[in-house]
Amino acid sequence: MNKLARIFPVFDWGRGYGRTALSNDLVAAAIVTIMLIPQSLAYAMLAGLPPEVGLYASILPIIAYALFGTSRTMAVGPVAVISLMTFSAVSRIAPVGSPEFLQAALVLALLSGLLQVLMGVLRLGFLANLLSHPVVSGFVTASSLIIATSQLKSILGVTASGSTLPELLRTLLPNLVHTNLPTVAIGVTATAFLFWVRKGLEPVLVKLGLAPRPAEMIAKAGPIAAIALSTLAVVGLGLEDRGVKVVGLIPNSLPPLTLPIFDAGLWSQLLVPALLLSVIGFVESVSVAQTLAARKRQRIRPDQELIGLGTANLASAFSGGYPVTGGFARSIVNFDAGAETPAAGAYTAIGILVSVLFLTPLLESLPVATLAATIIVAILRLVDLKKVIETWRYSRADFAAMTATILVTLLAGVESGVIAGVGLSLALFLWRASRPHAAIVGRVPETEHFRNVKRHKVFTDPRVLTIRIDESLTYLNARWLEEFVLEEVADHPELKHLILMCSAVNTIDASALESLEAINHRLADSGAKLHLSEVKGPVMDALERSHFLEELTGEVWLSQNAAFDAIIALAEREEEAKKPADLWMARGLI
Amino acid sequence: MNKLARIFPVFDWGRGYGRTALSNDLVAAAIVTIMLIPQSLAYAMLAGLPPEVGLYASILPIIAYALFGTSRTMAVGPVAVISLMTFSAVSRIAPVGSPEFLQAALVLALLSGLLQVLMGVLRLGFLANLLSHPVVSGFVTASSLIIATSQLKSILGVTASGSTLPELLRTLLPNLVHTNLPTVAIGVTATAFLFWVRKGLEPVLVKLGLAPRPAEMIAKAGPIAAIALSTLAVVGLGLEDRGVKVVGLIPNSLPPLTLPIFDAGLWSQLLVPALLLSVIGFVESVSVAQTLAARKRQRIRPDQELIGLGTANLASAFSGGYPVTGGFARSIVNFDAGAETPAAGAYTAIGILVSVLFLTPLLESLPVATLAATIIVAILRLVDLKKVIETWRYSRADFAAMTATILVTLLAGVESGVIAGVGLSLALFLWRASRPHAAIVGRVPETEHFRNVKRHKVFTDPRVLTIRIDESLTYLNARWLEEFVLEEVADHPELKHLILMCSAVNTIDASALESLEAINHRLADSGAKLHLSEVKGPVMDALERSHFLEELTGEVWLSQNAAFDAIIALAEREEEAKKPADLWMARGLI
Repeated sequence: MNKLARIFPVFDWGRGYGRTALSNDLVAAAIVTIMLIPQSLAYAMLAGLPPEVGLYASILPIIAYALFGTSRTMAVGPVAVISLMTFSAVSRIAPVGSPEFLQAALVLALLSGLLQVLMGVLRLGFLANLLSHPVVSGFVTASSLIIATSQLKSILGVTASGSTLPELLRTLLPNLVHTNLPTVAIGVTATAFLFWVRKGLEPVLVKLGLAPRPAEMIAKAGPIAAIALSTLAVVGLGLEDRGVKVVGLIPNSLPPLTLPIFDAGLWSQLLVPALLLSVIGFVESVSVAQTLAARKRQRIRPDQELIGLGTANLASAFSGGYPVTGGFARSIVNFDAGAETPAAGAYTAIGILVSVLFLTPLLESLPVATLAATIIVAILRLVDLKKVIETWRYSRADFAAMTATILVTLLAGVESGVIAGVGLSLALFLWRASRPHAAIVGRVPETEHFRNVKRHKVFTDPRVLTIRIDESLTYLNARWLEEFVLEEVADHPELKHLILMCSAVNTIDASALESLEAINHRLADSGAKLHLSEVKGPVMDALERSHFLEELTGEVWLSQNAAFDAIIALAEREEEAKKPADLWMARGLI
Repeated sequence: MNKLARIFPVFDWGRGYGRTALSNDLVAAAIVTIMLIPQSLAYAMLAGLPPEVGLYASILPIIAYALFGTSRTMAVGPVAVISLMTFSAVSRIAPVGSPEFLQAALVLALLSGLLQVLMGVLRLGFLANLLSHPVVSGFVTASSLIIATSQLKSILGVTASGSTLPELLRTLLPNLVHTNLPTVAIGVTATAFLFWVRKGLEPVLVKLGLAPRPAEMIAKAGPIAAIALSTLAVVGLGLEDRGVKVVGLIPNSLPPLTLPIFDAGLWSQLLVPALLLSVIGFVESVSVAQTLAARKRQRIRPDQELIGLGTANLASAFSGGYPVTGGFARSIVNFDAGAETPAAGAYTAIGILVSVLFLTPLLESLPVATLAATIIVAILRLVDLKKVIETWRYSRADFAAMTATILVTLLAGVESGVIAGVGLSLALFLWRASRPHAAIVGRVPETEHFRNVKRHKVFTDPRVLTIRIDESLTYLNARWLEEFVLEEVADHPELKHLILMCSAVNTIDASALESLEAINHRLADSGAKLHLSEVKGPVMDALERSHFLEELTGEVWLSQNAAFDAIIALAEREEEAKKPADLWMARGLI
């Protein structure tokens, strides 16, 4: 792949873009456009922004990603979790609905964009590793619960606010008395309908003789039906006068050219949220991209993905949008609809642009309750409690990190949740890394195998102790190594030779090297020798660059078995050598 | 060891404390006392505190440690690096010499004490692992250079201030014109004398027929001679009137009972410095303790050590002292002088108490230049540039962390230095952990061994790919695993079977498990199977608690060799099965 194509993947897939690709991309674009319009409106309102902002965020960002992203079929735009994070970050700074709120959302998009591009250029994509799978899935589950709860207000036609579960419930419950029945009717019907469409419609269509693929596509278009029907109901029955909230007039204009303001105070307030948002967005998006790419044996370059998402966010910031990332649902739809290249994204952008210009009047009387229903139906899929149980069964440490993330996110908000999860995972990782597994081993009779003395009946010798270390030796466990070895030495008064079996040691860093030197000297002080066995090639190369091998009182052995035999023999010779002296002592001659 | 003895190690060594132990401890105590008096005065002045504070810090803290510490021979009290950290933390808050300065020093000791006890009780000693050896040694080297520079002012009899190299030089250089010659004479002579005593005196004494041990002890008492002689010079020649600064009148009283003030603002300002100080102090002290304990095959319990040092700092805070920790030099002296139990520490405390009460008048005319000389001579031993070169040769990553620590400490101060070092080591560790070593392996002909295809001539099969992973699989490298494997798959279009050789995989956490599941599914999507070989027992136990093994498209093999043969055979059968179809296709029958 040439240099230009590395930076602008478009030069990679653009060459040889033919008619079939074109038609496939156009079909996919049409389907995704239909799906994106209601989603974009809904997520914008979830973020506390006017509906058109969601549409704007689905135009230029898609084109920016099409130019710089490495995924052929990913569709970027507003997504639920990022919208929630936007709301929680911005609502702390400006009152919902105020121009400052809009400004802050633009700045947030700008900062996330800058951070993502920067991380991509500096090849810092690996920092996303700090978000372990349990933390991410816990975070998504908790956010989804918060989002679903936050939409109840629109289903019930009451007011409520907040970005944590307690806030939401505290503000929601007192208002239940003002529940608006027509709104509830629409909201509940829409929700029920959408759930049925997702689960029940496709099989019915297939039974009616439709091929699975088109049946699936029609089912995907379900939200459109819900929107059309509920809008007609509102207009026909004049429900607006009966207190049913509607989307209202959406300006049918091109996306505005917006310049995020530079205000040091505002920027510093939004920096941490922007960082968390960029990383979460990146992690979500890259995993989708990889899933899709793998199906066609295509490649994703995570650092280039950061640049793609970053430019998408910058584009959003300068065209009246708010933070975006690669969406799971829409990308799957795009892929299933047969999109072949990022061009499909460009066509989608055009599709949405056209709708903004000519179709928005149709959405004026669209009830907010219907949008809330589409959000709830979409988001509840992301609540994954089964995963919590599986994690509990698989690993307690991962379970701890996961539950911490869920609880802190629900109770204290999305940012605290992410930070708590990352912090705890890291602490647990460092704790485990500082206490690796090691075993005293002995030889299984009639074999050359050495096994844990606690688990197997093995042959050992009081003068020779073999410790197998099952981890690389780094500064995190160097101190443990000294303590562990010296405790064992203190427990074995007859000890004359200690063998460290290094078959699972992949690296020894400078701290661990010093600990080995210390162990070597301390053993010497107490009259014992240190040996190493089964040292790997690269580790040996490193040791040869140090003075350790010169100072080592014992030797380095290729095979543990050979070492064990030779050293026992050596220990016996040493004792023989001492014997006569003991004899004379016994005779009182010394 | 019973419960009481775990908390109060005194009940462990106290039983069976006999006459020999008593006499040995008394001798050691006498020698250490003589050594501690000048040191305590000097380090207190280094910390910007009145000399007596150093003496107070050498009385109750020693006794507190004797009760709670686990090292038999460690001597706690003021040390150079901790004194510098105290100065740098406190001088930012209060002007040197002001009562607020004293108060802040007490609060710093209190906070470090509380933090250390807390860490000990919560068994958080492992957090000290975050300080890698290169970072600590870089930090000590840099601090020593700063300390030595800071003492130049006293040697030259001029004023200078600051806790970073630039500050010190900026304030020192303009004053060189005011250099006081008599002070220089004393300072330079004392420094030269002390260097000679350390290197040259002992051999001379031995030549004069003295036994090595007493010769060594006398050499250790060198500072006392320097102090006596220079004091006499000052008094005899009336140098005080010629501008030679002296220690001045030291109140000869019992240590005062002091109550550190509670001031939320002050406490929060000192919290981070206190934390760094506690951890640095702990790391320094515990490594000394371990070195000494190992020589007698005794044990150190790091978490109990934290409690010992913590109580010592609390004692210091309530008796007019400042932060203390286990000192390297004095502990070695204590050990060499034959101390057997912590009781030696208690006797030392009494010795110093007696000196405070009766000998301080003798120190009134002791020139500060002499104390500066003792500091310089003591501290320059800790500058270890050889270690920097060794680290460069052994590991670039460790070298980077070390030099970062040295430079930041010298230029920006001790706290920034520690933080930079710890941060960089951690970042580098995480970076390496996120890119473990893995190799495509093939079979060495006529053997059952599998080696890296890049390094050896080995047998491979285009349909079967074996990847050996040389690291445990955790969330830090889970994403790398997916990317690495899927890139290899994309590079091997004929691939039908992928074998992950897990001989060096000690753990697989939940994130890595999900990545394995993802790899399994993505391989299935592209028509290939995933196999595992040489999975360790504990890892297998964990996998059996998950659904992975049910979903696995391939199998888990005990031996890589068996797996390789069986899977090649399988791949051939699969091709056979396809053949006829191809045949018809060739004939245009399909």
